[in-house]
Amino acid sequence: MINPVIAEVTRGGIVESRHRGAYAVVNAEGHVVAAEGGIAAAIYPRSAIKAFQCLPVIESGAADRFGFTAEEIALCCSSHNGEAEHLRVARSMLAKAGNTEELYECGPHWPYHEASRLDLIRHGGVCLQVHNNCSGKHAGMLALARQLAADPHGYSAADHPVQRAIARTIGILCDIDLDDQPVGIDGCSVPTWAIPLRNLALGFARFASPDFAAGRRIIEAVRAHPFMVAGTGDFDTLLMEAVPRAFIKTGAEGVYCGAIPHAGLGIALKCDDGASRASEVAMASVLAGLDVWTPQEKAALERFREHDLRNWRQIEVGEVRGLKL
Amino acid sequence: MINPVIAEVTRGGIVESRHRGAYAVVNAEGHVVAAEGGIAAAIYPRSAIKAFQCLPVIESGAADRFGFTAEEIALCCSSHNGEAEHLRVARSMLAKAGNTEELYECGPHWPYHEASRLDLIRHGGVCLQVHNNCSGKHAGMLALARQLAADPHGYSAADHPVQRAIARTIGILCDIDLDDQPVGIDGCSVPTWAIPLRNLALGFARFASPDFAAGRRIIEAVRAHPFMVAGTGDFDTLLMEAVPRAFIKTGAEGVYCGAIPHAGLGIALKCDDGASRASEVAMASVLAGLDVWTPQEKAALERFREHDLRNWRQIEVGEVRGLKL
Repeated sequence: MINPVIAEVTRGGIVESRHRGAYAVVNAEGHVVAAEGGIAAAIYPRSAIKAFQCLPVIESGAADRFGFTAEEIALCCSSHNGEAEHLRVARSMLAKAGNTEELYECGPHWPYHEASRLDLIRHGGVCLQVHNNCSGKHAGMLALARQLAADPHGYSAADHPVQRAIARTIGILCDIDLDDQPVGIDGCSVPTWAIPLRNLALGFARFASPDFAAGRRIIEAVRAHPFMVAGTGDFDTLLMEAVPRAFIKTGAEGVYCGAIPHAGLGIALKCDDGASRASEVAMASVLAGLDVWTPQEKAALERFREHDLRNWRQIEVGEVRGLKL
Repeated sequence: MINPVIAEVTRGGIVESRHRGAYAVVNAEGHVVAAEGGIAAAIYPRSAIKAFQCLPVIESGAADRFGFTAEEIALCCSSHNGEAEHLRVARSMLAKAGNTEELYECGPHWPYHEASRLDLIRHGGVCLQVHNNCSGKHAGMLALARQLAADPHGYSAADHPVQRAIARTIGILCDIDLDDQPVGIDGCSVPTWAIPLRNLALGFARFASPDFAAGRRIIEAVRAHPFMVAGTGDFDTLLMEAVPRAFIKTGAEGVYCGAIPHAGLGIALKCDDGASRASEVAMASVLAGLDVWTPQEKAALERFREHDLRNWRQIEVGEVRGLKL
């Protein structure tokens, strides 16, 4: 099955590049409400399921034991920009659970946020693991290791109790045995299991169910602190600030997942070629196409379906747009 | 027509992302020697035809009048890394033709080369137009403006004599009237005309003909100075260092063009979704698949068909590979 075009990039009035992909919108009973493309194909969800990876931190009692705030729980679900506020919260999580930056296994990279990155370099700084966009998630995993009385060293390995707990949680939510699925190593060195889009969407619908307390706690934390999930100027932060009833999360290689709690829906989307510029506008298209919003919300979502493309002199040269989905 | 998959990205033993595209290999008589996908579709060649944009600099007599060296001609065809050597050569071209950096219309961006970028930032520098990967090409365009006795201001506009001369040259080589084609604004603010892949490949075959002196001069310049065309660790530089009989050039949005002068062939390739990681390995696949190489050259090209994908801790997590083309 060849997936349909979900997003286009234009220049000079014609389409210059096009992105194919698939998505599924599913309710908590597993009914497919909307879909395009091959939704039975397993994809690596990457960072798009950080909220699932955070669940055992809540359910194990780690979050309560260490007094994690809503801000800290939101950072635990983030691919953050490496801004000062993100670092402050990640370090607070480490300190509360008796962990240190030396225990991190996510690897270092420069902050994604340009002004923060330039500031760090200009002041002679080096990039640290806490700058890694996943350092909040990893602070949560290290707290979970403490709660499970497991050695924090090696917490990123697939057979470590931390990752086993996460795999069980994801498997139950998505109705799939992850032991039977392909597993890859993510950018931040933790396992990422291949899961069909349909199962991922089901997982997010269940995650957002009113009777699932841990899920609600995470959703409320993210809703209260959308900045913590990404950062200044980032798509997820901007969209959730504009439409607080949407819960979305990007993942590397063109993945988006999300939920619409008030409508009982879960969503999973993958751009075949892995482009984030496409998965972003396509996710906005999927959301805007669902009949579950106020007119104001719908208008806001429509605005996220396309954006200008500008060159080095800030001349508008084209646009990136999600197709009607 | 849906183009075939030309490159794949793997993780954990399965394909995580896939890239579609098309390519044409054509001889100087216009015969299609090899092709896949929709080669009649017009694409923006972007920086992949910088060698064509350099031709009027040679043919007008500007290169001789201003004493441009082979190194300078190579930089004129480059998307360079912004390393110190690239800046030196760009500034030399400006000075020789009586131009200054203030006349540049390419816009500033930080050097692509990481060590050069960090060094610049650490020393309190700002990014300048000369750091722009196109600053060599623009130095050539400014020299051409002088040679044409045209006002250098506004040389990037489509109706300026510089761009008109370039359009005529491209049109003749590619056997197409660019006035009838869609035109976009490139990242560096000059026009980019949409041209079918088949015509682009024809243009490169003609460009590399033994009896086309200006083309030969450019090819020899690039062959002598492959570092000038890209830079440290860059695909084009590495491939042409390994296989000097190949002439290739990347362009934004997943374009590759090139020629095999000894075989009389021109090549044009476009990855539908605009990904350079795919167009690189796919271009190596196209080259490797042609029966025009010594066994040593073929083995070298095969090595460019795939490379490891590593995460923030430098763990090998997968690979990027061009399919057999």
